[in-house]
Amino acid sequence: MLSHTPVLGVEHVTLADAHGRVLAGDLTAGSPLPAFPSSAVDGYAVRAADSGRTLRVVGESAAGRPLAERIGEGTAARILTGGVLPDGADCVVMIEEVSLDGELVTIPRGLRQGTNFHAVGADLRAGEKVLSGGTQLGPAEIGLAAAMGLPLLPVHRRPRVALMSTGDELVEVGKTPGRGQIQDSNRWALLGALREAGAEVRLLGIAPDEPEPLRRLVLDALGDADVLVTSGGVSVGTHDLVKPLLESLGTVHIGRVKLKPGKPFTFATLDGEGRKIAFGLPGFPVSSLVTFEVFVRPALRKMQGFASLQRPTLPVRLAYDAIPSADRTEYQRVTLRREGSGLVAQSTGSQSSSRLMSLAGAHALVRVPPGDHGIKSGSVVEAMVLALPDVQ
Amino acid sequence: MLSHTPVLGVEHVTLADAHGRVLAGDLTAGSPLPAFPSSAVDGYAVRAADSGRTLRVVGESAAGRPLAERIGEGTAARILTGGVLPDGADCVVMIEEVSLDGELVTIPRGLRQGTNFHAVGADLRAGEKVLSGGTQLGPAEIGLAAAMGLPLLPVHRRPRVALMSTGDELVEVGKTPGRGQIQDSNRWALLGALREAGAEVRLLGIAPDEPEPLRRLVLDALGDADVLVTSGGVSVGTHDLVKPLLESLGTVHIGRVKLKPGKPFTFATLDGEGRKIAFGLPGFPVSSLVTFEVFVRPALRKMQGFASLQRPTLPVRLAYDAIPSADRTEYQRVTLRREGSGLVAQSTGSQSSSRLMSLAGAHALVRVPPGDHGIKSGSVVEAMVLALPDVQ
Repeated sequence: MLSHTPVLGVEHVTLADAHGRVLAGDLTAGSPLPAFPSSAVDGYAVRAADSGRTLRVVGESAAGRPLAERIGEGTAARILTGGVLPDGADCVVMIEEVSLDGELVTIPRGLRQGTNFHAVGADLRAGEKVLSGGTQLGPAEIGLAAAMGLPLLPVHRRPRVALMSTGDELVEVGKTPGRGQIQDSNRWALLGALREAGAEVRLLGIAPDEPEPLRRLVLDALGDADVLVTSGGVSVGTHDLVKPLLESLGTVHIGRVKLKPGKPFTFATLDGEGRKIAFGLPGFPVSSLVTFEVFVRPALRKMQGFASLQRPTLPVRLAYDAIPSADRTEYQRVTLRREGSGLVAQSTGSQSSSRLMSLAGAHALVRVPPGDHGIKSGSVVEAMVLALPDVQ
Repeated sequence: MLSHTPVLGVEHVTLADAHGRVLAGDLTAGSPLPAFPSSAVDGYAVRAADSGRTLRVVGESAAGRPLAERIGEGTAARILTGGVLPDGADCVVMIEEVSLDGELVTIPRGLRQGTNFHAVGADLRAGEKVLSGGTQLGPAEIGLAAAMGLPLLPVHRRPRVALMSTGDELVEVGKTPGRGQIQDSNRWALLGALREAGAEVRLLGIAPDEPEPLRRLVLDALGDADVLVTSGGVSVGTHDLVKPLLESLGTVHIGRVKLKPGKPFTFATLDGEGRKIAFGLPGFPVSSLVTFEVFVRPALRKMQGFASLQRPTLPVRLAYDAIPSADRTEYQRVTLRREGSGLVAQSTGSQSSSRLMSLAGAHALVRVPPGDHGIKSGSVVEAMVLALPDVQ
């Protein structure tokens, strides 16, 4: 699936819109930071050679208000945090360490050059690589770009996703379901999951239950969207319209996966150039979110240029016997708690594909291979971490 | 500070706007889920008592299209995933396990009641507590609320934050700084940090450098805002206008902290009722982001009703000697990597308060108590985790 997933193009965003975006290409410092020697404290700019002497204060260097005068032998300048170190000075004495008498300041003995100020280039050297392409922009990364004077940053475009629910049993949330009907909860759960993964989402609502209106709706949405995500309607039932539609629009590469929850699952490319892809997720709520985690999220991250596509993992010790499925890899949902220096994983209870309570509040997914053996309580396995447990 | 921080009021948001919000109060299931016995597979609804027999297929129950007929002895109904289990049936046989001959279906021996369908209330019992107040709403939690038929959810209001940079040395990012001037990078770094913490931000830009215009700007912003966040202008320099302004508007509770980076730091309440608070962060970029992490983020989480205010922690083994500050608690920035089953912390290099490179890409903060001893390489400490390292 990832080999069929394109990396999206580059756009430039303002600093106000940069948060969470993924840098397209490395950023290199064009000039040093700080650009001038800058005081780290409030105090006096002096020459270290004048240590222990009483000096005449010739003026002040405040942040943004540099002092024109040079500091020569026997003189000092009052300096504030962020102020330019005046020419001639090679040391800043903290205000707590001096004694003052009118225009005269007595400074301690044994001062050393280079103390209490940030030298030119101390934070960034000109030409230094600052951020790598594929990095997600958080507060510090945005601050760095801003400090380098970059008001616009090159980032990969966010994937545009058209999201559609399918199934004759669905009603809009809040309407009273009739016999056999259920609320269309997947739409809202997947909307959250898609946004969390960085997508821009267009909601198509509940799919028409006739082939031709469905086809028109999807074709219209694909004019704009990079990805079509559907939920429901990909089991082997006779009423499923999604898979035939995807087959008619492009190439269905995967029509079923040996995954629990989530056996019914479709992946398709939707045009000759492979620039649009489709995921048909199962209708059961847990199945749709788990297949989203395992298959869709990494693809959306690839589209955005993320250096890392997968969730982080940590070793966890199972506090339960993980019973395997005979022929499907199972992603069991667990909560984590600290025990000593380790993490202990407890099952969230019944792992039914319809039971969202098995995923709400889950901290991790534990991958249980198919077969006869399962994983015994007390074993340590590598778990996909969704969220770390709160500090107790 | 937290004791002076109010929890904000409750508003109702649609499912489309619920992601990331914090639930105000518990949610309890009003009715069971599923509301009807629902097939987990495609197959045939039968009576387990008919195991091993050839049955007459009397109709079909598809999702949203229940079958009116009752399944009696010797009969079966074709059933699709999500379809209502017809009255009389007590078991679903998967389609792979039957043999078909026109209207007749032969089912295996040894079938058990209750197989392959979700019983009423199997996922949620009526009256069951589903989600606790203080829970952040992610995909599964939103899905649960939607499945319960709730189109609007009660959440705490997001804090409205007015953000202002102060300092005569600041220029707008992208303008060429003169001698002694720097780009106003804190505005954009803090905007990202504030949004990440759930705040709605109004940017006030660079503060006027005269008391009266500054006062008018802040008073106007506070008409709307719950929180004022400033950066810069809280050292002991004579040009600092922020602290006197906060003192004139309310009560300054904290004017300095024994923290590195971040000595200059102000916390104030701004009205008699304690409904508005202010944080004056230091001007150095790392100091402003670290004091944000340590003090502002927990307060913003309290305002939103989060059950948990602090970052999660994990034990990490130091791969460097953590040199302490003599008299200030230091939050050192580290990257994490896996070694065996443990996490190893490496310093991000020079921990200068102006060097954003020490925070960019950092995975955690290591708290180093003041004193003579520091923490030796190889020691295991509990680190505040900002992000887990990528899978290698």
